[in-house]
Amino acid sequence: MEIACLDLEGVLIPEIWVNFAKKTGIDELLATTRDIPDYDELMTQRLRILDQHGLKISQIQEVIDTLTPLDGAAEFLDWLRGEMQVVILSDTFYEFAAPFMKQLGYPTLFCHNLTIGDDGSVQDYNLRMPDQKREAVLRFRELNFTTIAAGDSYNDTTMLNEADRGILFCPPDNVIAEFPQFPVTLDYDQLKAEFTKAREALLK
Amino acid sequence: MEIACLDLEGVLIPEIWVNFAKKTGIDELLATTRDIPDYDELMTQRLRILDQHGLKISQIQEVIDTLTPLDGAAEFLDWLRGEMQVVILSDTFYEFAAPFMKQLGYPTLFCHNLTIGDDGSVQDYNLRMPDQKREAVLRFRELNFTTIAAGDSYNDTTMLNEADRGILFCPPDNVIAEFPQFPVTLDYDQLKAEFTKAREALLK
Repeated sequence: MEIACLDLEGVLIPEIWVNFAKKTGIDELLATTRDIPDYDELMTQRLRILDQHGLKISQIQEVIDTLTPLDGAAEFLDWLRGEMQVVILSDTFYEFAAPFMKQLGYPTLFCHNLTIGDDGSVQDYNLRMPDQKREAVLRFRELNFTTIAAGDSYNDTTMLNEADRGILFCPPDNVIAEFPQFPVTLDYDQLKAEFTKAREALLK
Repeated sequence: MEIACLDLEGVLIPEIWVNFAKKTGIDELLATTRDIPDYDELMTQRLRILDQHGLKISQIQEVIDTLTPLDGAAEFLDWLRGEMQVVILSDTFYEFAAPFMKQLGYPTLFCHNLTIGDDGSVQDYNLRMPDQKREAVLRFRELNFTTIAAGDSYNDTTMLNEADRGILFCPPDNVIAEFPQFPVTLDYDQLKAEFTKAREALLK
């Protein structure tokens, strides 16, 4: 009995902050966990920039509404949900992810949320817990599930290590170099093949 | 950040064993957890009856393929998935639930599985763990989720007790009498209203 634990941004949808940065022309918002592995440092910087530019949640959500899942992501997800249970583990926020979840057919998502002020400003971010991706995998294993995890970046690697099998999807070169223990996949066909292979190995 | 924990049979889909019993005319298979609260006793009896009648998994699945979710269940589930995260906690088996999951748009399901022999006979059932519904709610709470659970029968009551809020949906009279602490809902509109009420109470 398997649960697939999937990262969201970079695996099923585009990077939200990067696309927001491109639309608004604020280069400082281009940084991701690929550039700043310390997530709190990264988020503190992002909120400071939003405040400096007087950007409200509605403006951020307008940009998100124009984005769509990655090509082939919905089909991949439907295939995976027909094969095993799926829970998406992401360090994004429910307020940002909601439009994508509808487009992806409401997969179950564990992430974080934002504190929005009465004036629509993003006042704070609330991490549901530290290292939540790894913690979720641990809890699924305690519930006697076998876990297969896939992600693309630094903040996925503790989840990939904790899972029975970990798979990298379109990772940057530095993650490939630092984590040679995980197979690397570059498209959804390869990712499907690795999920199938992982399951067969775990059934033995 | 809430997770709704939903029972499956009697809440979103009809009772599988009852419908199988009606189709095959085997009255002994009409028993459910409403009649025999001890789940192991119930399942041991069911497997013995299947064996006595020489019934294979393919014949059981043919019957299941003719069943559909309860009227309004898919719409209710879509509404709920737009409001909060949803995980279905059921004591059925993945082999039986699969056709329904496709019809319901692949919600995440935690249940059990069967051991099927080479000849297609149902040789054994594998409980992923005892009291898995309550254990899952416990783990979600450890992951700092607020939990709202809904179910209809005896095997849901430990889950309802463990959750931040528990709701009964179309329960039999004996469950209503034994568990007066849970609000009783009799249709999806009432269930929606109780989920909304529970969330508002928990946000305070």
